Amino acid sequence: MDHFFNVKTLDQVMENLANVEGTGTEMVAITEAVSRILAQDIKASLDIPGFRRATMDGYAVIAKSTFGATESNPSWLEITGQVEMGEVPDFSLTSGLAAKISTGGMLPQGSDSVVMIEHTETIDENSVEIYKSVAPLQHVIDSSEDFAKGDVVLKKGLKIRSPEAGLAAALGYSEIEVYKQPRVGIISTGDEVIPVNETPAPGQIRDINSYTLTGFLKEAGCIPVLYGIIKDDLDALFVACDKAAKETDMLLISGGSSVGTRDFTIDVLNKIENSDILAHGISISPGKPTIFAKAGKKLLWGLPGQVVSAMVVFKIVVLPFINKLKGADNVNGDAFLISAKLSRNVASTQGRQDFVRVRLKNKDGDMVAEPVLGKSGLIKTMVAADGLLEIGENVEGLEKGSIVSIIPL
Amino acid sequence: MDHFFNVKTLDQVMENLANVEGTGTEMVAITEAVSRILAQDIKASLDIPGFRRATMDGYAVIAKSTFGATESNPSWLEITGQVEMGEVPDFSLTSGLAAKISTGGMLPQGSDSVVMIEHTETIDENSVEIYKSVAPLQHVIDSSEDFAKGDVVLKKGLKIRSPEAGLAAALGYSEIEVYKQPRVGIISTGDEVIPVNETPAPGQIRDINSYTLTGFLKEAGCIPVLYGIIKDDLDALFVACDKAAKETDMLLISGGSSVGTRDFTIDVLNKIENSDILAHGISISPGKPTIFAKAGKKLLWGLPGQVVSAMVVFKIVVLPFINKLKGADNVNGDAFLISAKLSRNVASTQGRQDFVRVRLKNKDGDMVAEPVLGKSGLIKTMVAADGLLEIGENVEGLEKGSIVSIIPL
Repeated sequence: MDHFFNVKTLDQVMENLANVEGTGTEMVAITEAVSRILAQDIKASLDIPGFRRATMDGYAVIAKSTFGATESNPSWLEITGQVEMGEVPDFSLTSGLAAKISTGGMLPQGSDSVVMIEHTETIDENSVEIYKSVAPLQHVIDSSEDFAKGDVVLKKGLKIRSPEAGLAAALGYSEIEVYKQPRVGIISTGDEVIPVNETPAPGQIRDINSYTLTGFLKEAGCIPVLYGIIKDDLDALFVACDKAAKETDMLLISGGSSVGTRDFTIDVLNKIENSDILAHGISISPGKPTIFAKAGKKLLWGLPGQVVSAMVVFKIVVLPFINKLKGADNVNGDAFLISAKLSRNVASTQGRQDFVRVRLKNKDGDMVAEPVLGKSGLIKTMVAADGLLEIGENVEGLEKGSIVSIIPL
Repeated sequence: MDHFFNVKTLDQVMENLANVEGTGTEMVAITEAVSRILAQDIKASLDIPGFRRATMDGYAVIAKSTFGATESNPSWLEITGQVEMGEVPDFSLTSGLAAKISTGGMLPQGSDSVVMIEHTETIDENSVEIYKSVAPLQHVIDSSEDFAKGDVVLKKGLKIRSPEAGLAAALGYSEIEVYKQPRVGIISTGDEVIPVNETPAPGQIRDINSYTLTGFLKEAGCIPVLYGIIKDDLDALFVACDKAAKETDMLLISGGSSVGTRDFTIDVLNKIENSDILAHGISISPGKPTIFAKAGKKLLWGLPGQVVSAMVVFKIVVLPFINKLKGADNVNGDAFLISAKLSRNVASTQGRQDFVRVRLKNKDGDMVAEPVLGKSGLIKTMVAADGLLEIGENVEGLEKGSIVSIIPL
């Protein structure tokens, strides 16, 4: 039983986040930047839009010229010209004058607003009637209204979404500096585990964790590196882990971390140069038999071999460390918790944090969380689940009808 | 004004979804399948796990042999052997016998349950004391308990997540049939629009939509194909659109769809062979000046040039059509709406569906939706937003404190 000498709570494990540094940085094209983490502050090198710009089709005017205009008492304005898109108007406006303009056009010198075309009637080539007054700056975006030159508009550590990529493009960044995608090694262990393209004999099972972890890692913006299946042999496992730890930023070993007869993972992790076992067991369920170690800057995880436990540990425990490696400010990622009503009572054991698989359903406009029944070793319970419900270590259980926050899967 | 002869409601536009077919299918490696849409039913070709399997480390037993066992009155069992991982035990158990077993091991013939090692004490090589009784099938997964041979376990039209990829691997699929990723063309139009690597003169603005749309398309699992910026020239725009429509499954033209002086998009879309204009204007805000057309099976969109409008139209209107093209059963995608409390009153105009940008914040455990203030033409309002709040066409507005459902961005 001396294996469980170093069981940690989830909070204790998370304290190690403070020591994790982002991977190096690289330049990527703005078309490749979405979902990467920004490694530089993005400053506005110019005002955006950079000129007083129409946001509607219509007539550029001086607002004052339209004051009091109504359907029954229109203002009459003289048309002095037309704004060509992408060009600086070669005329200016004074009171009583108007110029035809399209959305995106530059307002002529002197004008401060745009009357929508729907509120005008063109009388002839030289005159237009205005049926509705506008206020100064109405239907325009002023020169530095979106961003002013010198503003820090996007901060280092932010996850780039499509709007941020568009903004960077507006500021002239055809490429930007982002954190490198962490390379994460995956090793499956166990004499009973066989490759996906072989047919299992009784007692054998195909490798599953390599594929679920590959999927989760890709979703998380990492580069998974598959090292295959290693049989329960101390030397073979050491050679594979040592190589993988050297070649990657983080290593996930699944299987072999249970208190079993063939538990080599802990011995192997101990044997890796400069390694330090940070946790041997975490007080969560599922996922207790998880090992967490580091060797220099490399983070090494022994995940449970059981597929559902491995997935839960990845989502709850490993992912914040990956986010930190990725350089993200928000280690919890950017998915919002989903508020839902619990469909039945859920029991829990005090002294450990439970993560219950739930299915989410919309019932009469309410989001309802239904615990997925079935043994925690069944893959089908994970396939049926949309999210995880956390039950704190000091909570005995949750009652039917409680409003709970679900971690999306 | 005769341009707006064909304004449709959002519901009317969505009626066209029924006519959209999935793109062709292809085989992909299981490591590449996550977030693709399954184009075949996946059947269990064998029972999973395929044998009676231990889910704990301990002793395989016949449950009856442990009945009544407690700390003070343990059952004494004879150890007849040890289960080797991945192998069929070459012995069987009868009453009073036990066999050492690790998680994942195959139970010996005759045994029906596993006693956790924590509830045992090994006396010597040949005997073990059991401190807690187990029920039949406790701490085991039975041969076909996860999936039975012949079961359809994953259905065509489902989005593949990591658990589903793992399940397919368990069933021996090293590759699976998925729908092809739709190729979607992007054209930016406008004399004022210049490439990202040029410096805008007054009146000009860099291309933004090509980059925001590229990002959204990649997130949606499409292959964006950039056709660059086309100046306001009818012939040039026709040539570009005609080529793009032939080379892609869907075309997004941004800019030029406003009721403007240089509105060529509608003319170009009319001129494309076999084209049919399905909507010229949609009663939503932002996004009213959207054009929707088809030419044969190709869907052609004229998106507003204004960046925020283009983003909203993409998310709300275009995305369900992309999901249908992708072969997905769920055209609304798989993101859950986020329930939140509205931080202030929001006004709306009846007769159109409004989509208000909101920021989501966690305040004292409540998710709060704060409308993002600022003109709808400002990119900064989109960068600040986490989601969109829909206000129905027959609703005048929503009150502070209302519980609303937010569409995540």
